[in-house]
Amino acid sequence: MSALFERVAFLGLGHIGSSLCHAIRRGRIASHISGYAQSAKTRETAKRIGLVDSIHETASEAVSNADLVILCVPVGACGAVAAEMASSLKPGAILTDVGSVKAAIVRDVAPHLPKGVEFIPGHPIAGTEQSGPESGFAELFHNRWCILTPLPDSDPDAVSRLEKFWQACGSNVELMTPEHHDLVLAITSHLPHLIAYNTVATAADLEEVTNSEVIKYSAGGFRDFTRIAASDPTMWRDVFLNNREAVLEMLGRFSEDLSALQRAIRWGDGEALFNLFTRAREVRRSIIAAGQETAAPNFGRDQGQR
Amino acid sequence: MSALFERVAFLGLGHIGSSLCHAIRRGRIASHISGYAQSAKTRETAKRIGLVDSIHETASEAVSNADLVILCVPVGACGAVAAEMASSLKPGAILTDVGSVKAAIVRDVAPHLPKGVEFIPGHPIAGTEQSGPESGFAELFHNRWCILTPLPDSDPDAVSRLEKFWQACGSNVELMTPEHHDLVLAITSHLPHLIAYNTVATAADLEEVTNSEVIKYSAGGFRDFTRIAASDPTMWRDVFLNNREAVLEMLGRFSEDLSALQRAIRWGDGEALFNLFTRAREVRRSIIAAGQETAAPNFGRDQGQR
Repeated sequence: MSALFERVAFLGLGHIGSSLCHAIRRGRIASHISGYAQSAKTRETAKRIGLVDSIHETASEAVSNADLVILCVPVGACGAVAAEMASSLKPGAILTDVGSVKAAIVRDVAPHLPKGVEFIPGHPIAGTEQSGPESGFAELFHNRWCILTPLPDSDPDAVSRLEKFWQACGSNVELMTPEHHDLVLAITSHLPHLIAYNTVATAADLEEVTNSEVIKYSAGGFRDFTRIAASDPTMWRDVFLNNREAVLEMLGRFSEDLSALQRAIRWGDGEALFNLFTRAREVRRSIIAAGQETAAPNFGRDQGQR
Repeated sequence: MSALFERVAFLGLGHIGSSLCHAIRRGRIASHISGYAQSAKTRETAKRIGLVDSIHETASEAVSNADLVILCVPVGACGAVAAEMASSLKPGAILTDVGSVKAAIVRDVAPHLPKGVEFIPGHPIAGTEQSGPESGFAELFHNRWCILTPLPDSDPDAVSRLEKFWQACGSNVELMTPEHHDLVLAITSHLPHLIAYNTVATAADLEEVTNSEVIKYSAGGFRDFTRIAASDPTMWRDVFLNNREAVLEMLGRFSEDLSALQRAIRWGDGEALFNLFTRAREVRRSIIAAGQETAAPNFGRDQGQR
């Protein structure tokens, strides 16, 4: 079987970029992987661990002759990287990205692109709290969804090729508009991250409870929040700055609901609490039924690893 | 080696109770385990899977002649169960519990107890979102903290025996007052659960994003909230009704902090966001360093199980 793409270029070699490199190698999805990273340290690491076939000091060099170019830098950096390398893109090349917001990426990247380049934004709904070129693993995208948000004038053949790419990485692919993507992700990802960051910060500031107590007794639920809140700060800053309207909308609803819950606690309304908690549990069951989670005890964590 | 206790009685055979039964058998910590559960179905299940040596239809029968009695019913039910069985407690018996709040338990249980019974409230900081007599496993308490909150007149020898019991189950034991326990747990456990429940409820009510989209793309962070929000509704209703003051205090702080974060997003203050996110990440590192979590990628979940 010949490779799906001759030459794939990565701009950014963090957690998602490096995981994709591993997935491409495992699936023999491309004949050559070229890579660029802004930091010399990341480039050195990528070279040392053999992440890519060629490593380049500029984005322009990395994308030269590539059939598929994947932007894997934080959302806020995509525009500048696109501006730098756009003129080096091969005619007919497919350009995509993996950013957690889509409308802002279209706004920042599309204006720089020459005619003949197919820009199809994308977002794999996968990741851990890890970051950096050594954190990637090929299985990250297995059985996960990847959302592609083609533009009105996107070539259907190019979209179909990109779909095949993600399927070869183990993902299921769904198409939607950039705007709808940003609304869906605001609730399924951006709000949970914001809330987790906020809870951890609130806990760290308490005077009555020491930080060492918070850490010691974190297994009661807090620990799971810190895991989410350990994600890359630059990436998440850019997400909130670039999906502001949708995040503020979800945050407003969250705060209203929380006020109602607070009132139920203050007035001892056990029935309201019980009904809300029961409803939340049903959502969990649906997620397990949809195959997006394990039902194994202890959160499915390997006992030995703790 | 002789068993630490001759006869241990469980009142309530849910997730914690059944896990303790397994831990006792594995460690040969008691010669006989007697059990009571309010529901006939739970009693039948416990009998069928051989969870206990004897199963009883009343709490009084179950505690008869027991050296150690462990209340494993929801916090709100402890008072009534104590009232029913108090007169059947053996003189010199140790009575403890596993509830997530402690001051309310002391308030509800202590008045019913005859002289000569040693009441030492306790709380193992362990658990999953599972519930019921079949969900228990012996390793649940491994390397987890168990907080004991002895009363001013508790016998030090009895406290020491109960400490040995929890250590034999794999836990580390810490002592503090019931009031301080309730404050610590309000931030490390009760607030995170409340926030998780609230986020899931907010998501379920959206009109612009369908429930099936929320479920489909839950891997972005939301999934972790639903795991926390899948915990037993009765247990958690009772926690919030019985640790009201501390929870409302933490909730007030959380909401203040969230307003500041909301403002930073609205005004595009990237530096404030970045600094807060970086600080939250440090807390995570401390928890890993304290041995309360794995640093393994993909949240330490077994790849095959997802």
